[in-house]
Amino acid sequence: MTTTTLDAASTAAKTGAATGPISGVFSAATTPVGPDGAPRLDLFAAHAQALLREGCHGVALLGTTGEANSFSVAERMALLDAARDSGIAGPQLLPGTSSCNIPESVALTRHAVDHGVLGCVMLPPFYYKGVSDDGLFRFYASVIEGVGDDRLRLVLYHIPQVTQVPIGHDLIARLLDAFPGIVVGIKDSAGDLGNMAAMVARFPGFSVLAGADPLLLPLLRGGGQGCITATSNLRADALRTIWEKWADPTAEAEVAAAQDRINAWRSLTNTYVQLPTVKAMVAKARGNDAWLNVRPPLAPLSDAERENVWSEMDRLSA
Amino acid sequence: MTTTTLDAASTAAKTGAATGPISGVFSAATTPVGPDGAPRLDLFAAHAQALLREGCHGVALLGTTGEANSFSVAERMALLDAARDSGIAGPQLLPGTSSCNIPESVALTRHAVDHGVLGCVMLPPFYYKGVSDDGLFRFYASVIEGVGDDRLRLVLYHIPQVTQVPIGHDLIARLLDAFPGIVVGIKDSAGDLGNMAAMVARFPGFSVLAGADPLLLPLLRGGGQGCITATSNLRADALRTIWEKWADPTAEAEVAAAQDRINAWRSLTNTYVQLPTVKAMVAKARGNDAWLNVRPPLAPLSDAERENVWSEMDRLSA
Repeated sequence: MTTTTLDAASTAAKTGAATGPISGVFSAATTPVGPDGAPRLDLFAAHAQALLREGCHGVALLGTTGEANSFSVAERMALLDAARDSGIAGPQLLPGTSSCNIPESVALTRHAVDHGVLGCVMLPPFYYKGVSDDGLFRFYASVIEGVGDDRLRLVLYHIPQVTQVPIGHDLIARLLDAFPGIVVGIKDSAGDLGNMAAMVARFPGFSVLAGADPLLLPLLRGGGQGCITATSNLRADALRTIWEKWADPTAEAEVAAAQDRINAWRSLTNTYVQLPTVKAMVAKARGNDAWLNVRPPLAPLSDAERENVWSEMDRLSA
Repeated sequence: MTTTTLDAASTAAKTGAATGPISGVFSAATTPVGPDGAPRLDLFAAHAQALLREGCHGVALLGTTGEANSFSVAERMALLDAARDSGIAGPQLLPGTSSCNIPESVALTRHAVDHGVLGCVMLPPFYYKGVSDDGLFRFYASVIEGVGDDRLRLVLYHIPQVTQVPIGHDLIARLLDAFPGIVVGIKDSAGDLGNMAAMVARFPGFSVLAGADPLLLPLLRGGGQGCITATSNLRADALRTIWEKWADPTAEAEVAAAQDRINAWRSLTNTYVQLPTVKAMVAKARGNDAWLNVRPPLAPLSDAERENVWSEMDRLSA
């Protein structure tokens, strides 16, 4: 991957073209809920718009950080509708649209494709463990064929520490062979740069996106296309700086400082259970305590934990 | 647990009374699908009725063996409706009614309670790992309160080798304390008799049901109430013999032979990936190849594997 190619990808992302590889800084956006657990569509749309202003190319709503699997199909559709209705263009949206079953994955994906989204991020079905590549291929193939729409752009989602169902390279090769132009990328949240480098090398034109902030700069240097991360809910500016300037030799110090900055914020999100910590940080950043709520099985931070995190945010922002 | 108490439970199960602890032999029924993956409601209802004739007290549809998480909410409701519409009484049904999200778990559970089912079997939400007891308690409490129906009888489902989310004894104690008479039992598929014995000892009146056939006899001897297992799709008769006669000193040899028999069939189901193997065995037993189909991410046995399993069935049946 050369600078020229990345510049082309950058232009594609900026102009919202959905035909090139998926490239840029995408936010694994958190999903606000009320005290009763109901999605706060208004807050969500405002957050999504703020993320774009702050530097994200797009919003990867309803991933692990977005608590997708804790929402019903109807709620997930309503959240995407809310983002669209607030004026966010389809090509700026990269929703998670899979579940453990094919019919609901088809319904969610078709709904997203009809919104003209940049792509659909899909976990493997994650209930059964030790399943074969044949079974996973059949799952993805059934969803793609069930949607039956050439506009679909599918981003695989590799997060084996959560799903316990890894997406291996032979499966990817098989999917690329069967569905060229439809299966276009992967979000790799395993945190293993070697795995990402191997995919960049083996699959030309396939978008490899880092799920872990500290790996954005090394991944871009190695031919990857960007990131979908949680810390973008807080520091999209730093991620965008890295993405824009990583190949500019005059910006080396600025890029390194941005990566240090994002790493520090990322470390803070890992002080306690990550997702409630991210939401507590968003609550402070957006000035709205509704962000403190999480859906079970997650539990909010204790008051003491929250105060610690907020103090650290002040220190990092100073 | 004395023989007298078990006899009372047996009578309750036979008469369909839903007020006592949940006790008996329940089939973790498989779910037939067509070549296109659509549930075969007719075959399912016929299978459920056959299971009752063959010795099951009830049908625990839509568990792990029933591929519950591979079906949509609408399909899961249709399967329960099909069982009911075929004439099976509510107190003979023990459906799995949970998913990773609260609204759909409430909808599935309310639908089942409205059918007058014996109980609802509920996995913990299984996407996030390392969640706290607080979060799991809030999940179950939210579902119970969302259903808001005193007829609900909830059977927890402990299968940590699949979910990676264990249900610990302190969580059970907290649920029993908060929802007495609603939370009534557990299906323990971890295969650890010590864990089941500890629950029998700590929670009087709580129904502990084995998820693994080889543990039925030792569990009954230790005060457990029965089983929900996959091999009942094939050999309900042997399980029923054990359940009826385990405490009868004159039937010791008969009970031991029945446990040996069920263990042999159980071993055969583990020759290859268990669930497709069970379905291949049901296909032969019921004489209908539609049973060979599975939903992705599971994959059917190869022809050679199926032939091996079928030959072994002939040998075991001889």
